[in-house]
Amino acid sequence: MVYMVGNPTAAFIVIGNEILSGRTQDKNINFLANGLNALGIRFKEVRIIPDIEQTIIDTVNELRKKFTYVFTSGGIGPTHDDITSESIAKAFGVELLRNPDAVAALEAHYENSEQNLNEARLRMANIPDGATLIRNPISGAPGYRIENVFVMAGVPSIMQAMFDNIKNSLQGGEKIIAREITTHLTEGTIASALSKIQSNYPNLDLGSYPFIHSGKLGVCLVVRGIDKTEISKCEKAITKMIEELGGSVIEAK
Amino acid sequence: MVYMVGNPTAAFIVIGNEILSGRTQDKNINFLANGLNALGIRFKEVRIIPDIEQTIIDTVNELRKKFTYVFTSGGIGPTHDDITSESIAKAFGVELLRNPDAVAALEAHYENSEQNLNEARLRMANIPDGATLIRNPISGAPGYRIENVFVMAGVPSIMQAMFDNIKNSLQGGEKIIAREITTHLTEGTIASALSKIQSNYPNLDLGSYPFIHSGKLGVCLVVRGIDKTEISKCEKAITKMIEELGGSVIEAK
Repeated sequence: MVYMVGNPTAAFIVIGNEILSGRTQDKNINFLANGLNALGIRFKEVRIIPDIEQTIIDTVNELRKKFTYVFTSGGIGPTHDDITSESIAKAFGVELLRNPDAVAALEAHYENSEQNLNEARLRMANIPDGATLIRNPISGAPGYRIENVFVMAGVPSIMQAMFDNIKNSLQGGEKIIAREITTHLTEGTIASALSKIQSNYPNLDLGSYPFIHSGKLGVCLVVRGIDKTEISKCEKAITKMIEELGGSVIEAK
Repeated sequence: MVYMVGNPTAAFIVIGNEILSGRTQDKNINFLANGLNALGIRFKEVRIIPDIEQTIIDTVNELRKKFTYVFTSGGIGPTHDDITSESIAKAFGVELLRNPDAVAALEAHYENSEQNLNEARLRMANIPDGATLIRNPISGAPGYRIENVFVMAGVPSIMQAMFDNIKNSLQGGEKIIAREITTHLTEGTIASALSKIQSNYPNLDLGSYPFIHSGKLGVCLVVRGIDKTEISKCEKAITKMIEELGGSVIEAK
């Protein structure tokens, strides 16, 4: 992926036993992938880990050194199994303090609620020292940024609202353009010719994704890069290759 | 997760730019999570990484030392971006050899096909030396096991068929039983009482998963463990707690 050099990079840590137990199908990875790609930030790695303090600390400390940005989801609620904030504070070697602005955000949220701001809910205002809050328009309890790490909720609607609130503060990079060409030729038929096309376009990333739809095999070819003219030329070369091999393009987008 | 000590463990490496680019929503993680849990194997970590040789080598070598089993998906097709097998061979320091049984499997598959077994397709019979094949009933090209690493296809129907073919060869552990109790009380309301219940049942893992359905908040409480009697007692304690806090159980399963 040569064209990715020099752009900001990101990793995502999904903290959650519920994904690893099979109870819940993750929905945040795909959302974040699309959000980061739209900003020109290269999404390089995802880790899904359990709610174990040492695992959270080690994973955060490893990844925050490797990538421009690290995002986490999950474990910032009010219950005993929400241990993300304690773990993040330990990862950074800072104290976990009751944050007045977070308390104010919770007070504002619960003011018009049938529920009261009890001590368990106030725990959600305990934030690592030095962090900047991320507003949560849905349930009040904020996420936060500490250095290059963004700590967000696990509930998809809240995670997504939090990401929307921070995305303008992220430094983007050159946008990746993607074109997809789909055919019912199969991978083995096109592999050799496709490999030659990839060699002719070293600045583009040519992906080949086989599929089976209603028992019918096919492949979706994806051209990714930053230079529109080059991408357009490569797309034409792929279309020509498909026709020469006796196939047809069933979709291009 | 105290009850997990002593059971076999597993990690899953999803090799695929298509997940990280946002093009594809992963479907294999949840399938594998449910499959491993049914066998009593503790699913401890997922990594989603790009098709970069050194990243694949490093990730495989790190995780195969840490877990009983490592599964991979993706990158074993016939095109230029399929580099998993070369990377696995390098990770284990063995040669990548054309495997006669894999060639036979491909020959059998393509015998009744409109397509021919060309050199690109034969590349899928290049298997790290010492590996044992995993049958692919859908498209012929096998996966394989090398030591404690299971290399599978990325297309969900093929990955799932491969896992079904190997699961009886895995050493399982004590099965985890899960009970779910759902209420429209919210996490902050139950947090303090729930924490006390968790303290009373140190051998169980009590998870709290908030949700928003049609704008209505609630929480799903999950009790996980291996002792049926204890789980049943804990479930009763949770039901009692919900009623004492003025809520009701809307679902228990």
